[in-house]
Amino acid sequence: MPDTWRDIAARKQKERTERIPKAWLLQSAASSPKAKGTTILNVPRECGILTTEEIRITEEYDATALSRELASGKLRSVDVVTAFCKRAAIAQQLTNCLTEIFFDAAIVRARELDEHFTKTGKPKGALHGLPISIKDTFKVKSYDASIGIASLCFKPATTNSALVEVLIEQGAVLFCKTNIPQTMMALDSHNNVFGRVLNPANGDLTPGGSSGGEGALVAIRGSALGIGTDVGGSIRIPAMCNGLVGFKPSHGRVPYAGQEGGLPAGSSKLAIESTAGPIARTVRDCELLLRAVGSGKPWLFDPDVVPQAWDEQAALHMLGPSNKAQKPLRVGIVRTDGHSSPLPPIQRLLEDVSQTLRSSVSPRGAIEVVDLDIASLAMQCVKTFNGIMSIDGASTWLDLLDKTGEPLSPWLQTRLRRRPQKSLDEVRKLQAQMTDLRTRFLDIWSERGGYWLTADSKAKKGDKALDVIICPVAPHPIPPVDRWNSTNYTSAFNLLDYPAGVLPVRTFGEADLEGELPQSSPLNGWDKINRELWTNVNRKAYLGSPLSVQIVAPKLMDRKLIDAMAVLETTFASVKPSTSKASKL
Amino acid sequence: MPDTWRDIAARKQKERTERIPKAWLLQSAASSPKAKGTTILNVPRECGILTTEEIRITEEYDATALSRELASGKLRSVDVVTAFCKRAAIAQQLTNCLTEIFFDAAIVRARELDEHFTKTGKPKGALHGLPISIKDTFKVKSYDASIGIASLCFKPATTNSALVEVLIEQGAVLFCKTNIPQTMMALDSHNNVFGRVLNPANGDLTPGGSSGGEGALVAIRGSALGIGTDVGGSIRIPAMCNGLVGFKPSHGRVPYAGQEGGLPAGSSKLAIESTAGPIARTVRDCELLLRAVGSGKPWLFDPDVVPQAWDEQAALHMLGPSNKAQKPLRVGIVRTDGHSSPLPPIQRLLEDVSQTLRSSVSPRGAIEVVDLDIASLAMQCVKTFNGIMSIDGASTWLDLLDKTGEPLSPWLQTRLRRRPQKSLDEVRKLQAQMTDLRTRFLDIWSERGGYWLTADSKAKKGDKALDVIICPVAPHPIPPVDRWNSTNYTSAFNLLDYPAGVLPVRTFGEADLEGELPQSSPLNGWDKINRELWTNVNRKAYLGSPLSVQIVAPKLMDRKLIDAMAVLETTFASVKPSTSKASKL
Repeated sequence: MPDTWRDIAARKQKERTERIPKAWLLQSAASSPKAKGTTILNVPRECGILTTEEIRITEEYDATALSRELASGKLRSVDVVTAFCKRAAIAQQLTNCLTEIFFDAAIVRARELDEHFTKTGKPKGALHGLPISIKDTFKVKSYDASIGIASLCFKPATTNSALVEVLIEQGAVLFCKTNIPQTMMALDSHNNVFGRVLNPANGDLTPGGSSGGEGALVAIRGSALGIGTDVGGSIRIPAMCNGLVGFKPSHGRVPYAGQEGGLPAGSSKLAIESTAGPIARTVRDCELLLRAVGSGKPWLFDPDVVPQAWDEQAALHMLGPSNKAQKPLRVGIVRTDGHSSPLPPIQRLLEDVSQTLRSSVSPRGAIEVVDLDIASLAMQCVKTFNGIMSIDGASTWLDLLDKTGEPLSPWLQTRLRRRPQKSLDEVRKLQAQMTDLRTRFLDIWSERGGYWLTADSKAKKGDKALDVIICPVAPHPIPPVDRWNSTNYTSAFNLLDYPAGVLPVRTFGEADLEGELPQSSPLNGWDKINRELWTNVNRKAYLGSPLSVQIVAPKLMDRKLIDAMAVLETTFASVKPSTSKASKL
Repeated sequence: MPDTWRDIAARKQKERTERIPKAWLLQSAASSPKAKGTTILNVPRECGILTTEEIRITEEYDATALSRELASGKLRSVDVVTAFCKRAAIAQQLTNCLTEIFFDAAIVRARELDEHFTKTGKPKGALHGLPISIKDTFKVKSYDASIGIASLCFKPATTNSALVEVLIEQGAVLFCKTNIPQTMMALDSHNNVFGRVLNPANGDLTPGGSSGGEGALVAIRGSALGIGTDVGGSIRIPAMCNGLVGFKPSHGRVPYAGQEGGLPAGSSKLAIESTAGPIARTVRDCELLLRAVGSGKPWLFDPDVVPQAWDEQAALHMLGPSNKAQKPLRVGIVRTDGHSSPLPPIQRLLEDVSQTLRSSVSPRGAIEVVDLDIASLAMQCVKTFNGIMSIDGASTWLDLLDKTGEPLSPWLQTRLRRRPQKSLDEVRKLQAQMTDLRTRFLDIWSERGGYWLTADSKAKKGDKALDVIICPVAPHPIPPVDRWNSTNYTSAFNLLDYPAGVLPVRTFGEADLEGELPQSSPLNGWDKINRELWTNVNRKAYLGSPLSVQIVAPKLMDRKLIDAMAVLETTFASVKPSTSKASKL
């Protein structure tokens, strides 16, 4: 009799637990993952498992600073890796954020790298000795890439994903893989094999998905740098939900080849390409990863990657006020996608950002703000995205589940069902729609394109161009578990293949509780459900949660986007929670 | 009663003739396109239609030299454009190479550009005043893009193709569109609307296709620079057949958006992307076009284009012998694709090239030659390419023909028939095969990849990499009309999305008539037909025809390829026709 999914899940979870050294197990039942609604961010510091030095290593550096200490020999890799393994073990017990654990192999590799450094006096690669966590979808030889599906368990990978090869060549130490939602198409992170990931800052709110385990792990400082993947928001949504910086590259920047995606080979070529990118605490940490990968000749590992090293990509050229030929950072603000109207706190957040930027001169020069109305275009992305992401009618996933009798995850139960596979003609038409939208969106970047809201009609014919746009990550704050709704604010940029990052701005304050919805009817079913995240919810659950925005650049302008995000990260530090009702609401 | 294809073709040809000024019509019946087998390259100089100055303009410059004279005001655009219009009119009468003629509009634009230069003292764009011819597939507002299909005639384009917009912005003067084969899938250039293109150097041999009109026009110097498109060899084959330089870029370098391809929108996304590129007399002319387009921000016109200006692309870094850190141009020689064995003269050509390169130091430094055996991989490209290029089972084309009762062109009659459209699963599998081949081909460039034939087995583990490979354009010389056979030598590089160019090396000499086929059986049906181009043909028809090779670089290494082609162009000048039987044959 074949194993049931319950048998497999039990064996898989047992294997996972056994891979945590006994000395690293928490004693208190109160800090178990069942304790929903509690903040457990302080547990690692207080539980007594980490030494003072390990607390210092995991809390006082970002990945960039750690990387510098490792490259100069001031920190040993074995100490850094051990510290993060211990903290990740604790994170796992608190939030259920891991899938595959390979702490032992990581510590062996760390020692080898330390020996290399001792012998040669040189670091191995741009990520020498740095522990990096990766989403379960990546293949690492000898470990499963089960993506939380029982029928894919206990089938260890025989190859490394292309990005894994690049990271190893750059000296990184991979130490664990992180939890994801069933099918990767949910925006929480629950599956039957590994269970549900909790948000470490607030167990009532979702940690997001699909790179939700990565988000939780980095938030609890169980990893200095994590790598997720994103085909509709799966890096950006958990970055937002955990108050982190997330970066979804354009396709062709970071190798994606050799992942376990649950779908047959060739599927992504007919749909939208997913991309891999960093989830981290700072923009410079995202850049650390992107630069190391981009400069590691990733095009030799994955034929889809553009042969252009990070430093060869166009940078953001801002010239400071002292320079006569001043070139500001020109930012377009997008308030709505025309499909789900942002709730009052998100409207207020965008207004705060807009006002702060308008009054800012960044250390690197002036910032110019332009209001954009792209609703008429952006709302059209929904149907094409949903169509192109469901060409196989979910049958591959449902077949995988049927093998062991697995049920659907809660969030998917009302959303995923078997439908007829689309015809070749339908897929061709969807591809044509996608190309058409990509073509029409070229206009939003240019002053003469017709989407800039400027008082001066002459100015509309100028040849100014935007560097980046800022828009919501979602039309709502971090929602309660299993209540994430629309993804158009993120998925539109997958459809367009634009690089897009998430930056935390400020936390949800008392003033954000105010503001009511317009009297008008909802725009559509999605908008109606979105409104319920304001009207049919305990608003106070949002208090103290991070509010983030999304920063977007044109296709393949990944380096320019990182440069702009670094400028904005500094500028956003001066955004304060609103203290009064914003007049515009 | 609807028009028949004959009515439409007659009207279309009448329109074309009427667009040639009476004074430019040839008087002699002997030089009509019916005179197959004759060389008519001298007719333009001798027919009395061009002035001495016009002969000088069209014969004593390449496009680069013309462009310099135009940019410095030493030549007026109106004179240059008029000279090429006249010569193109003659070329049309001799070889039937044109479709749409807009000499009058071109001359008006040339005058405007001259006025601009007089007023401002500056050229408009990198191609100021330069006449450029384009394949019929490009859309130019107010003119048909009928691609030789009767049911598409008299439906003038209402938009310009993206590349047309870029060329206009760069100051180019478009003056005519060029003839192509029915369906663009033939390797001659015949259609029912415009008739057949002849090879101006030898009417018995094919001018090639599908950019055959472009090849004939440039060969007769009716255009200094032409633009074709290539999805299986359609730039490279006519370049070879007309002794010209042709360059098929990687997808994402030259805008392709907004073409008339005969297929419904979105089709190319499921198959292979066609690319647009130059057909010219010199490598530097190809570079002129690629640099002008690449620097004209083409990514603002076509969302598929990589935002990387020509000068931002990786260049070939050769360091001359005087430099201690000498870096040679490293060339891999591929003798066969393992699917159709090259006939004796092509084997001899590759051996000549190999020997010349091995004994050469180019003005820019040393050249290193490596023999490669990629037959086991290259032969696998055939099936995937043929599968992916026939996903709609030819029904779109046949429907277009059925509308007016058009018959198939001779070459297609035995090759094109209605088949079932492929299923989505089949297309997905083909896409997966394509990705798999692209991944496996990454190995051919690297010493450690296992495809280099080196005596030293240790060397195989080194980390040297090839800059380019050299291989045949086809397994045969320029064949008689309608006898082109396999396209794998060219189409493999469309499947792989590698940039690939064609360079003439030498002409077919008396010694090339020697050499017999091996006694072994043909490899397959294609190889059998290829052998007939040696055994069932008047070999003397090949005498004096150009022999060319193909130069190929990794994906998106377009600038590096042009740089290497410029070095090889100089080096090939010393390749002489073989005078004795090559010992290896």
